[in-house]
Amino acid sequence: MKKILNDPKRFVDEMLEGLYAAHPGMLGYTGGDLRCLVRADAPVQGKVALATGGGSGHLPVFLGYVGRGMLDGCAIGDVFQSPSADQMLAVTRQIHGGKGVLYIYGNYGGDIMNFDMATEMASMEDIEVRTVLVKDDVASAPAERAETRRGVAGMVFAFKTAGAKADQGGSLDEVEAVAQRTLANTRTMGVALGPCILPTVGKPGFTLGEDEMELGMGIHGEPGVRRGKLETADQIAEQILATITADMPLNSGDRVAVMVNGLGATPLEELYILYRRVHQLLADQGVSIHRPFIGEFATSMEMPGASITLFKLDDELIPLLDHPAHTPFFRV
Amino acid sequence: MKKILNDPKRFVDEMLEGLYAAHPGMLGYTGGDLRCLVRADAPVQGKVALATGGGSGHLPVFLGYVGRGMLDGCAIGDVFQSPSADQMLAVTRQIHGGKGVLYIYGNYGGDIMNFDMATEMASMEDIEVRTVLVKDDVASAPAERAETRRGVAGMVFAFKTAGAKADQGGSLDEVEAVAQRTLANTRTMGVALGPCILPTVGKPGFTLGEDEMELGMGIHGEPGVRRGKLETADQIAEQILATITADMPLNSGDRVAVMVNGLGATPLEELYILYRRVHQLLADQGVSIHRPFIGEFATSMEMPGASITLFKLDDELIPLLDHPAHTPFFRV
Repeated sequence: MKKILNDPKRFVDEMLEGLYAAHPGMLGYTGGDLRCLVRADAPVQGKVALATGGGSGHLPVFLGYVGRGMLDGCAIGDVFQSPSADQMLAVTRQIHGGKGVLYIYGNYGGDIMNFDMATEMASMEDIEVRTVLVKDDVASAPAERAETRRGVAGMVFAFKTAGAKADQGGSLDEVEAVAQRTLANTRTMGVALGPCILPTVGKPGFTLGEDEMELGMGIHGEPGVRRGKLETADQIAEQILATITADMPLNSGDRVAVMVNGLGATPLEELYILYRRVHQLLADQGVSIHRPFIGEFATSMEMPGASITLFKLDDELIPLLDHPAHTPFFRV
Repeated sequence: MKKILNDPKRFVDEMLEGLYAAHPGMLGYTGGDLRCLVRADAPVQGKVALATGGGSGHLPVFLGYVGRGMLDGCAIGDVFQSPSADQMLAVTRQIHGGKGVLYIYGNYGGDIMNFDMATEMASMEDIEVRTVLVKDDVASAPAERAETRRGVAGMVFAFKTAGAKADQGGSLDEVEAVAQRTLANTRTMGVALGPCILPTVGKPGFTLGEDEMELGMGIHGEPGVRRGKLETADQIAEQILATITADMPLNSGDRVAVMVNGLGATPLEELYILYRRVHQLLADQGVSIHRPFIGEFATSMEMPGASITLFKLDDELIPLLDHPAHTPFFRV
């Protein structure tokens, strides 16, 4: 196993020890548990608090979006494992600033069960918690079962806009509505060129032939929609955009944010080659790109591959996307 | 070959087409040549201009550091190939704001030959050009031949401090002196866990066994100082720090910037595990880390591995490191 680590069982905790050593002014943890991460200045009184959580192995998702203008806290699980309800509750208590808490996280069973338990426990402490689930992966289910789709990189746009709304003093209703509207306007699809390796397992969870790719694969290696010969960057971009726009039609004059996200091992150069074709295709349709995000935003360890996210904007969402944000991993 | 691209021969140009489409307000090119990249607002009159250049395949190095508070232009070669003297001259002409131009680039033969020719041609046009070579890779030669060392990730610190000095109105002498002093105080060493693949070649340039690593390997796959069994993150950090501090001693009370740089395929999680041990080792010596840089700053396509850079600071260099900088790839 080609990984830079010590004890595989301490992978997440040692990563977190490094993280807190690196960013002491920005991040801290609560309840004596490294995995209950909060903004160093939490709670921010009078602000709606935002929390997320999920398994490790996706940096900067999830914890990388905790910071000013984005999230207030994050519960951190083992690699690809849900954190516990108790950890979510500890984060919730620490970040609550008197105006309620919004959970935004991916549509995965373990996370839902634990976040729902945390919600119930928080309500017994008179903390109002709402939940918005991220289901942006168009490849994970057809439109008629869109409610079952998985959450992937598009969650970053919900963190951004809802975080901005909270930063501007929005109510829990308003922040929740912004998150919901952002996700209603957000679609993602990915392509994997190979597997990733869990530290405690030490070998790939699946294999792909030397000349194969898998369109629509999930960020934990969930099966995609089609495995086939590796295609060109342009062909990949065309198929992903066609699938996304079949699900979320775009019209001439529309404005979007585009994310071209590396899954882990794909060079930035290749992400720009993908972006080139995305930009051409949207320009041909009269769609303008308000802001591109090109880099690693939601990864799957060292998986080679990429995802493309489109976020359809409007006059309310644009200033929220452009509102300042500053975390150790992300800045606008 | 598992790469997301179209025609391998158009790898660099298509990457650049994507880049200019993504960042039109920040970056442009001159002379009708995509590979002659400049700040969109070049030339900045009355400011010393800074340029770099070198082969592609290292993003964000080199072009990712062109922007406010850092560099003014960059000549871009094919993957791992030097750009031409004519391209460097075209960049130099476009960025010259009347106070001279400083070249900062890595100590590689092809680049030196071409940058020196560009310097001569520029002088015939009454543009004064100075050069500071980056030679931060301690593994590439022993101290007695330090002048022959290669330039790697440490160049980013020279871009940052010299760029800040220029932004603050420094003279060519002053900007050059800051770059030299920064590099005199900067050391880097890397470890590779595997090869990278050139788009036009399509197969790895070397192989490493499934349980092997190579300490000190260069960012083009140049041989390192020792190939052996893959060691733990802590052992890797300890050996790299021991090598660096043998070459550049640190004392209790010293302040440093630390860069833990991923070479391409190494997950951010693993970089934080490395940083954890670097932080411990420096704290044990009474050395404080003024600012950590953890992420991908100088890559080698999809090479798995990492490098660690230490930059010893002082009261003049700290404000230059902290001075605002803003490029599409880097922000302080």
